Amino acid sequence: MNKDSLERRIEEAIDRSSAGGCPPRLAEALEYAVFPGGGRVRPLLTLACAEACGASDLSVAEGAATAIELIHCASLVHDDMPCFDDAQIRRGKPALFRAFGEPMALLVGDALITLAFEEVALTAIAGAERAAQLTRIVARGLGTAHGIIGGQAWELEDKIDLVRYHRAKTASLFEAACAAGAVAAGVDGEPWRQVGRLLGEAYQLADDLADATGDAASLGKPTGQDSNNNTPSAVKSLGLLTTVERLESRLAAAKRAIPDCQGRDGLAALIDSVGHRLCPPDLKQRIEQAAVAGAAA
Amino acid sequence: MNKDSLERRIEEAIDRSSAGGCPPRLAEALEYAVFPGGGRVRPLLTLACAEACGASDLSVAEGAATAIELIHCASLVHDDMPCFDDAQIRRGKPALFRAFGEPMALLVGDALITLAFEEVALTAIAGAERAAQLTRIVARGLGTAHGIIGGQAWELEDKIDLVRYHRAKTASLFEAACAAGAVAAGVDGEPWRQVGRLLGEAYQLADDLADATGDAASLGKPTGQDSNNNTPSAVKSLGLLTTVERLESRLAAAKRAIPDCQGRDGLAALIDSVGHRLCPPDLKQRIEQAAVAGAAA
Repeated sequence: MNKDSLERRIEEAIDRSSAGGCPPRLAEALEYAVFPGGGRVRPLLTLACAEACGASDLSVAEGAATAIELIHCASLVHDDMPCFDDAQIRRGKPALFRAFGEPMALLVGDALITLAFEEVALTAIAGAERAAQLTRIVARGLGTAHGIIGGQAWELEDKIDLVRYHRAKTASLFEAACAAGAVAAGVDGEPWRQVGRLLGEAYQLADDLADATGDAASLGKPTGQDSNNNTPSAVKSLGLLTTVERLESRLAAAKRAIPDCQGRDGLAALIDSVGHRLCPPDLKQRIEQAAVAGAAA
Repeated sequence: MNKDSLERRIEEAIDRSSAGGCPPRLAEALEYAVFPGGGRVRPLLTLACAEACGASDLSVAEGAATAIELIHCASLVHDDMPCFDDAQIRRGKPALFRAFGEPMALLVGDALITLAFEEVALTAIAGAERAAQLTRIVARGLGTAHGIIGGQAWELEDKIDLVRYHRAKTASLFEAACAAGAVAAGVDGEPWRQVGRLLGEAYQLADDLADATGDAASLGKPTGQDSNNNTPSAVKSLGLLTTVERLESRLAAAKRAIPDCQGRDGLAALIDSVGHRLCPPDLKQRIEQAAVAGAAA
């Protein structure tokens, strides 16, 4: 797996979208939305799953991985808009709507979704059947019932089911990332969803923790959003320590969930490295110390 | 070609999207965005092109037509939002953001785009190669360079090329509608783009005319938007009469552009009926009379 090669593929997709007739400010805003990237965790997961499944040629998987990342970027741009989270900072710089205005933010999100599906269709060169399957996987990850859009829409309901909400809002695209990797390698994607779901849940728990503990630097966005915005949060429901324990158990379960495959070790190593970032070994200790200090004060 | 059957297919797509886990208000808003429909001109054009190309089984074409209509509905929902056109009325009822709020309007547009691509992927049952081609056609019709998103983004530029703007904003989805019909029938889509482009240009000219002459009832949305919003308009550039003449010539050219095919007459009849609605036979006379009355006053 090669992060540079993934980055080039994402660049090529943005270049293709920005070429030949694209209004120049839109092109600039697309670039702004996608570069510099965050951890690119989801697309790297897609590639890792494809490799684990023994894909010899990674070009289909790279196309699918690029689509997953573009969908992720689209959801960030739309989610940050004033009518939604009104988030000012993203990946350490002003949110796109602040840099380019709301109309452009609306269009950039739509454009990235479109580009994602186009990217998947381009993988049809290597097999149209797979491309169609990948389209459905990406659409499900973004969609109304189990995907990001459904998750965001739960925020607009009076009654909310926290598990379902988090699964749709965050875990869905991780599920799609893993299933897409497997399908790109010509393997049934369904058993791979579980790995993605567990990782996505871990990611959401870590995000809630960082938001609650005020670790703005590691998030690259403002903290305290969940309590400010009245967004459901695991920390609010479970408390800090139980949230950390749940996060640890999800990471361990994700490794156990990897289906039998030839490249199991590489994927397990990726999960370890993601886990280390999401949940540093001393996190629990720091929380306990802070609680003791708080009680003594 | 059967409009009821198309309507059922669109209903099925919305039902699928609204089922199994979709937040209820999102489901309600999706329904609101798509029903009751407007003229369904674009998807009917896709079906007419497929029939003209001799498609024996219309199920792939119906999937493509449904996708084209869902993309169209998505663009209306996003376009009406306060940060864009701030349009209050659509298809004779409050714009979606007024009925459901801006956050929901943002999600509904994204959801309809997603659903459109999913619908295309479902056509893979009848041939994955065609499904991948259709995905690329739909993505191009919506995309940044030649599609709706690019067209809307030209509105955010300082310098605007009117022909390019209209071609991207309106004609692109008509092009996609025609090309998709041909591809769904197993025929090369490229020569069919010209029919769509000319019809799309006619549509845009008719829209500018209706906006300028204040025919709010036939539009189902407020008029005078172009001058209010400083949007480029053919009427502003060419005047009323020249705009009508250009509209007539585009409709005639669209009929001439139909490639050799077995079902030419049916498609020509559809263009005639669309043309009759866009440009009633007495339109030029009415404009001339109004000009005379204005000069005499």
